[in-house]
Amino acid sequence: MSKGSGSGGYSGGLDRRDFLKAGALGVAAGAIYGCGEPGSGQASLAGAASVPGGLGSAPAQPFAAPPIDQVRIGFVGVGGMGTAHVRNLVRIDGCVVSAVCDIREEHAERAADIIEEAGHPRPALYTGGETDFERLTAEADVDLVYTATPWRWHVPVCVAAMENGKHSATEVPAAYTLEDCWRLVETAERTNRHCLMMENVNYGRAELLCLNLVRQGLLGEILHAECGYLHDLRGIKFADDGEGLWRRDHAWTRDGNLYPTHGLGPVANCMDINRGDKFDYLVSMSSPSRGLQEWAAEHYPEGHPKRAETFALGDVNGSLIKTARGGTIYVSHDTNLPRPYSRINQVQGTKGIFQGYPDRVYIEGRSPSHRWEEAETYYEEFEHPLWTALQEASIGAGHGGMDFMEDYRLIKCLREGLPTDMNVYDAAALSAVCELSEISVANGSAPVEFPDFTRGQWKDWAPWPVVGA
Amino acid sequence: MSKGSGSGGYSGGLDRRDFLKAGALGVAAGAIYGCGEPGSGQASLAGAASVPGGLGSAPAQPFAAPPIDQVRIGFVGVGGMGTAHVRNLVRIDGCVVSAVCDIREEHAERAADIIEEAGHPRPALYTGGETDFERLTAEADVDLVYTATPWRWHVPVCVAAMENGKHSATEVPAAYTLEDCWRLVETAERTNRHCLMMENVNYGRAELLCLNLVRQGLLGEILHAECGYLHDLRGIKFADDGEGLWRRDHAWTRDGNLYPTHGLGPVANCMDINRGDKFDYLVSMSSPSRGLQEWAAEHYPEGHPKRAETFALGDVNGSLIKTARGGTIYVSHDTNLPRPYSRINQVQGTKGIFQGYPDRVYIEGRSPSHRWEEAETYYEEFEHPLWTALQEASIGAGHGGMDFMEDYRLIKCLREGLPTDMNVYDAAALSAVCELSEISVANGSAPVEFPDFTRGQWKDWAPWPVVGA
Repeated sequence: MSKGSGSGGYSGGLDRRDFLKAGALGVAAGAIYGCGEPGSGQASLAGAASVPGGLGSAPAQPFAAPPIDQVRIGFVGVGGMGTAHVRNLVRIDGCVVSAVCDIREEHAERAADIIEEAGHPRPALYTGGETDFERLTAEADVDLVYTATPWRWHVPVCVAAMENGKHSATEVPAAYTLEDCWRLVETAERTNRHCLMMENVNYGRAELLCLNLVRQGLLGEILHAECGYLHDLRGIKFADDGEGLWRRDHAWTRDGNLYPTHGLGPVANCMDINRGDKFDYLVSMSSPSRGLQEWAAEHYPEGHPKRAETFALGDVNGSLIKTARGGTIYVSHDTNLPRPYSRINQVQGTKGIFQGYPDRVYIEGRSPSHRWEEAETYYEEFEHPLWTALQEASIGAGHGGMDFMEDYRLIKCLREGLPTDMNVYDAAALSAVCELSEISVANGSAPVEFPDFTRGQWKDWAPWPVVGA
Repeated sequence: MSKGSGSGGYSGGLDRRDFLKAGALGVAAGAIYGCGEPGSGQASLAGAASVPGGLGSAPAQPFAAPPIDQVRIGFVGVGGMGTAHVRNLVRIDGCVVSAVCDIREEHAERAADIIEEAGHPRPALYTGGETDFERLTAEADVDLVYTATPWRWHVPVCVAAMENGKHSATEVPAAYTLEDCWRLVETAERTNRHCLMMENVNYGRAELLCLNLVRQGLLGEILHAECGYLHDLRGIKFADDGEGLWRRDHAWTRDGNLYPTHGLGPVANCMDINRGDKFDYLVSMSSPSRGLQEWAAEHYPEGHPKRAETFALGDVNGSLIKTARGGTIYVSHDTNLPRPYSRINQVQGTKGIFQGYPDRVYIEGRSPSHRWEEAETYYEEFEHPLWTALQEASIGAGHGGMDFMEDYRLIKCLREGLPTDMNVYDAAALSAVCELSEISVANGSAPVEFPDFTRGQWKDWAPWPVVGA
């Protein structure tokens, strides 16, 4: 391979076909997005939104499976995030990680040690290479396959799991092509299995405070949100281990929002996406690509192969999303430049506004006129019940506790036979922003319509309630 | 008139033709924005950007007029902002306000008192109705006509001034149609007169600190900016005096960014717009329109005419602007909902980032890793020289002193025969966002190209330097 450090391993980067496919987006896009009729007042946006043949209706109610008393889990990919999830799961009642898969035997053994030390039987290990998850999904006696692999393996693992009768859960993004989004939806419907995207930020303390304010009506009708993933990942992308082995590779050929779900997940919940509203269309725009090139030039000697890499990814990508009810969302992706972390996390309604970084609230008639209040002062009255119940138990878990909350809710829903908090339609709608933004960027910011993965059921599905522990 | 409180007076709102014209935008737009060639990787964006016939080249260097030792000023429109400017001007050496025009005699007299109390001769007053500025521009022996009228009169006053051999300066926005933007440019070029838009925020302390950091290279190459005008104006829009007499009217039929220049001015300077770069195209999106309707319902009894008003203006409008060098700008307009004030004011480069509300700085290698510093700590080393020199003199002037700085620089440039800080091309480019955003919104967020008001000269004109007092 001529670029980067990627090799064939499934922690080892995109293969050449993947970037050619990604690179072909710009060429294909002309056929995908449409051109409006003059004077229609609305460009018609076609192609990208079409529903694949052979699909019937989405279910009348979000899918729920029969209760599972003890949830047996096969975990695929126990690097940084996977190991964090395993550490959470061994602390949650009613589940056991009974199979572990990783291309690196020492990572699988490390996870097995954690599981054994927690008092569970040592799990079966699958370390036979990058497709050994297929053996796990076929053989292991598990109810759920949970994956925290590099992005390119999320869909293959979930599909293999569901085809073998297991529920599936994946780290973010669930997919990064429209075709793969549909593949998850189609497989989940046909096999009657869960397919969840584990968006931990949906369970952030500030995000759930905001959702609680929304559900109690304090912000009024929600009209607009701003969010994103603004995180200087240059060091991580160029690292010689972990995500450095594959994450940078996506920036070689893809220009758009590569990582939309952390920002979008919580605001989508506040705006009832797939549950009363849906993403309608987006426009997207990228700045020049400088950050990774300059980082390589500053950190590697002349002649180092990383200095020869070239990148398509604009350093800052911004998209505007319109929802079917008319709401608007600005979502940013900004991972190649020096800057402090932010997810923006702004939710604005007719009666008030929540904004993150720093967390603050303004509610008409309650806040001092035209002045922010610190969100901190709202926790006493409006703490989300999940945090009230689990905050102590979550101490030490990843990302300030939110990772524990999401794993807890996953297991609870499976044990009680409830619909999961997020489902395959959320996974698809949020992940679709990846390719849709790439199409828009490749076509001069032209508007591109979202597929309706729910095929109209978003009108009837109920908003995500304020759930408890 | 069936809607609102507007009447014929020039503080009295749009007349019916104005809204019909504005309302016709959506219909006309289909012919204005174009549709890209499939696979071109760039939608072609035509029509809105065409250059009117009869125009030659823009000047090789930004226009400068012969020095004027004592600048004699005719002031048109001395309501709130106009009076604030008069108060500034009487404190600035080398100028005198020798004529004042207003439809309200008591306002003109108030301004005359201020001028006289400052030791100047009592100015000639023009209070003969809404077009009496024509008499002022024709008769009064002034060098500069400065206007702070309602928006609809900015262009007529400036054009009348220039046609009568006077320089012109106007409050923001200079214009709100592309036709009027070109009219200012054409008139300024043909008459060899200044036409400035007085964007006070260009002189804000934090904004000039940021510009100084940019000019000194601390933020690296500037790639992205975010800005806007986020100000709960509901009370002002519905007031029975001042801006309440005309400003709300624009929301009846216009849906886009009605007030882009406060946010865009400073970031345009940081990005060398019209001076090395230019706005290339934009996409725009509006949320539903709720805030003004709900305000009226809450504040007026049933049957009150203000409750019968309907509004087109989406409460939150967001636009993404692409520059010719590839830079990106998010600009927001958010004036109908309860919220604290913000202009966002974010400027991001390859080496660092400035962000407002609250003001903060991150500079790689200087700031603690991944953590903001308070911008306050940067003033000692990087205060803009204009603020170092004039901060004390500006105490008590409007908007924290920035209004004084802009008036000071205007007079200084005219007295010394310098090019003005901002010129007619900046007025046009920044104001063009009004109609361009309306066209994009009316056409489903389709990309719309900016006119190049400089006709290519932006490539050669030098960036605005760090000017002094």
